[in-house]
Amino acid sequence: MEGLKEEIVRKLHDLGKFGNDPDGGVSRLLYSKSWVEAQNAVKAWLEKEGFEARFDEVGNLFGTLIGTKSDETILTGSHIDTVKNGGLYDGQYGIVAGIIAINYLKEKYGQPLRNLEVVSMAEEEGSRFPYTFWGSKNIVGIAKQKDVETIADFNGISFEEAMKETGFHFKDESKGMRKDVKSFVEIHVEQGSILEAEKKSVGIVQSIVGQRRFSVQLTGDSNHAGTTPMGHRRDTVYAASQMISEIITMAKEVGDPLVTTVGNIEVKPNMVNVVPGKTNFTIDVRHIDKNEIVQYTNKVKNTIATRAKEHDVEAEIDMWLDIDPVPMDAKIVKVIETVCNVNDLNYKMMHSGAGHDAQIFAPVVPTAMLFVPSHKGISHNPAEHTEPEDLAEGVKALIGTLYELAYKE
Amino acid sequence: MEGLKEEIVRKLHDLGKFGNDPDGGVSRLLYSKSWVEAQNAVKAWLEKEGFEARFDEVGNLFGTLIGTKSDETILTGSHIDTVKNGGLYDGQYGIVAGIIAINYLKEKYGQPLRNLEVVSMAEEEGSRFPYTFWGSKNIVGIAKQKDVETIADFNGISFEEAMKETGFHFKDESKGMRKDVKSFVEIHVEQGSILEAEKKSVGIVQSIVGQRRFSVQLTGDSNHAGTTPMGHRRDTVYAASQMISEIITMAKEVGDPLVTTVGNIEVKPNMVNVVPGKTNFTIDVRHIDKNEIVQYTNKVKNTIATRAKEHDVEAEIDMWLDIDPVPMDAKIVKVIETVCNVNDLNYKMMHSGAGHDAQIFAPVVPTAMLFVPSHKGISHNPAEHTEPEDLAEGVKALIGTLYELAYKE
Repeated sequence: MEGLKEEIVRKLHDLGKFGNDPDGGVSRLLYSKSWVEAQNAVKAWLEKEGFEARFDEVGNLFGTLIGTKSDETILTGSHIDTVKNGGLYDGQYGIVAGIIAINYLKEKYGQPLRNLEVVSMAEEEGSRFPYTFWGSKNIVGIAKQKDVETIADFNGISFEEAMKETGFHFKDESKGMRKDVKSFVEIHVEQGSILEAEKKSVGIVQSIVGQRRFSVQLTGDSNHAGTTPMGHRRDTVYAASQMISEIITMAKEVGDPLVTTVGNIEVKPNMVNVVPGKTNFTIDVRHIDKNEIVQYTNKVKNTIATRAKEHDVEAEIDMWLDIDPVPMDAKIVKVIETVCNVNDLNYKMMHSGAGHDAQIFAPVVPTAMLFVPSHKGISHNPAEHTEPEDLAEGVKALIGTLYELAYKE
Repeated sequence: MEGLKEEIVRKLHDLGKFGNDPDGGVSRLLYSKSWVEAQNAVKAWLEKEGFEARFDEVGNLFGTLIGTKSDETILTGSHIDTVKNGGLYDGQYGIVAGIIAINYLKEKYGQPLRNLEVVSMAEEEGSRFPYTFWGSKNIVGIAKQKDVETIADFNGISFEEAMKETGFHFKDESKGMRKDVKSFVEIHVEQGSILEAEKKSVGIVQSIVGQRRFSVQLTGDSNHAGTTPMGHRRDTVYAASQMISEIITMAKEVGDPLVTTVGNIEVKPNMVNVVPGKTNFTIDVRHIDKNEIVQYTNKVKNTIATRAKEHDVEAEIDMWLDIDPVPMDAKIVKVIETVCNVNDLNYKMMHSGAGHDAQIFAPVVPTAMLFVPSHKGISHNPAEHTEPEDLAEGVKALIGTLYELAYKE
């Protein structure tokens, strides 16, 4: 596959021009001008390559290579939108890889048995509006108009207004998932450093983690830092420091693949010389096993309650996100593993710690997912990078997989 | 002393009208319109009572009752400025108490041996400009023009511009402290809850605490909360939580009167789903014994260094404040104690955990300080309150003390 690396990199850069930021990076938010330009560029590319290209109601773009058995479709692709000031790889690599892979298959093997279709999904990141997976949720028929009707972007432009301005509109909610789609395979950058650390080019995802997110609000007393003896204090930072320390230590004791992050802390009044009367912090917990999440988060709640009592502070715990883990389809995972072995690809079985469109498809359609490495795990950042060799190895794995799914009986 | 309580409360409310906030509280920042009005109101009151009243160069207001031995002065008073949205007691109580006390002495005992003088100091809080003790530092001759030349308020108005607009100007720096001042006695609200908790009306301050303040900057790696296994993290919130927990626990082990506060925490990027790559926090340490401060803060530095190493994060520690404890004059303290015993006042020997103008005077002039209780320790807040009975007990202690200092040989 000569020139494969170069072709992938060139296409990523070409697409990356739509929404390129002055200081590097890509900002391509849902229904923005650069988003429209990027989708149109993908459409033009698809048409040039002989795909049958079309948008759905909300702006997901599909390109199909028709098979002889045209009522069955093997779908691949990812999302076209980016975070604000994101990189060249997150999302668009999956689209570029899909088009190049299907092109390769068409040139080498001709018309497939089943339709081979690539999708450039409208939205996954939730970066413009407080809503994620708009693209894939519409494809599988679980997006609800009422969930986006009242939301607006940072400039006050409503979701509906932004959508309609680009010529798209809400989908008929009575329409479910298309019946012809038999498999979905997504390829994406890892957004973590495991593949790089283990010197692997390809990750085969077995499961996407479940998540729980909590906000913890501690209330004590704000007091003068000089005139309040230690024994008279209801110090929420002291209480929080012990809670956080124990919560994270407990997570380490449970061990991989459990991860726990306290990423946000807000202290009030947040002044050097005032004992802090309020401290809020968040907890993000992920694991591939729901039972482990439940057991661990129960321990977290107990720890918070115990420490709050000891410190005489009030603690409110709000669980505002609770997503179950999503296993990938075991049969397709097996197919991919065989493909990697036959083609001598350097792969690792792993899970995804991040959310992906694949988790929206998986409950409805047999779904699988491939990763390529992210240098230093850098993600959602102009500095995100994957070595061209690894980008090509990922496409090779995708080619082999799509061949098995679309050309074999 | 009939009507004393009522007189104090009335005068506090009268003065509190200058800078009163729409929703309650007082905001009387240095050189503001309400500040000018308040100083002029005090001047008018002093003149009405027969004091000789005058401003110094920078706006400190003095009112003198001339003694027969007119080259010796006993000074009392406090600051007229407040924090933004402060209360009725912090600062102005010391001025009101001083005027009422001297009036009482004049009416009861006539002309004193030494001059009795009350001062309404221009500034102590540092609420408009990033500079504290402007009033007392000018009186003792340690204020430096260069220290305020480049500072401005939140509206960009320079210190000098604000001062000159009110008709004041820099003092000749070659002029030191006046030679006639033989003692300074300040009365102030405690800003803590010790007197209230112990049901005491008067505190006799033996020492004002020393302070050290630190900023700690931790640098690790910002990573994806889902894709970064616990063992791959350089999590600054985890490191900070252990440091803070240990620092405060160590302070409790050292015991009173050591106090340590972590009042400010800043996390970056401070997002629920990102392992935080930067965490900064402050440490405020106070004790009446410099050696205890040094020993304890050395332990703090060791703890931070040890934990930083364990967590593989970089730690920078910056000590940006280092003030020595200031003992009050033992002879005057003894005088006050005797006065309280003779007059059957319900008092407690204690230290001040907050800074006060008295600490600026103490190195230059024999200085002492009295406290009255602060309800619930509330300070720098419209809700600050002291019971009228306690306000009166404080004035009685001040009367007795000024009598001993100004009328006795």
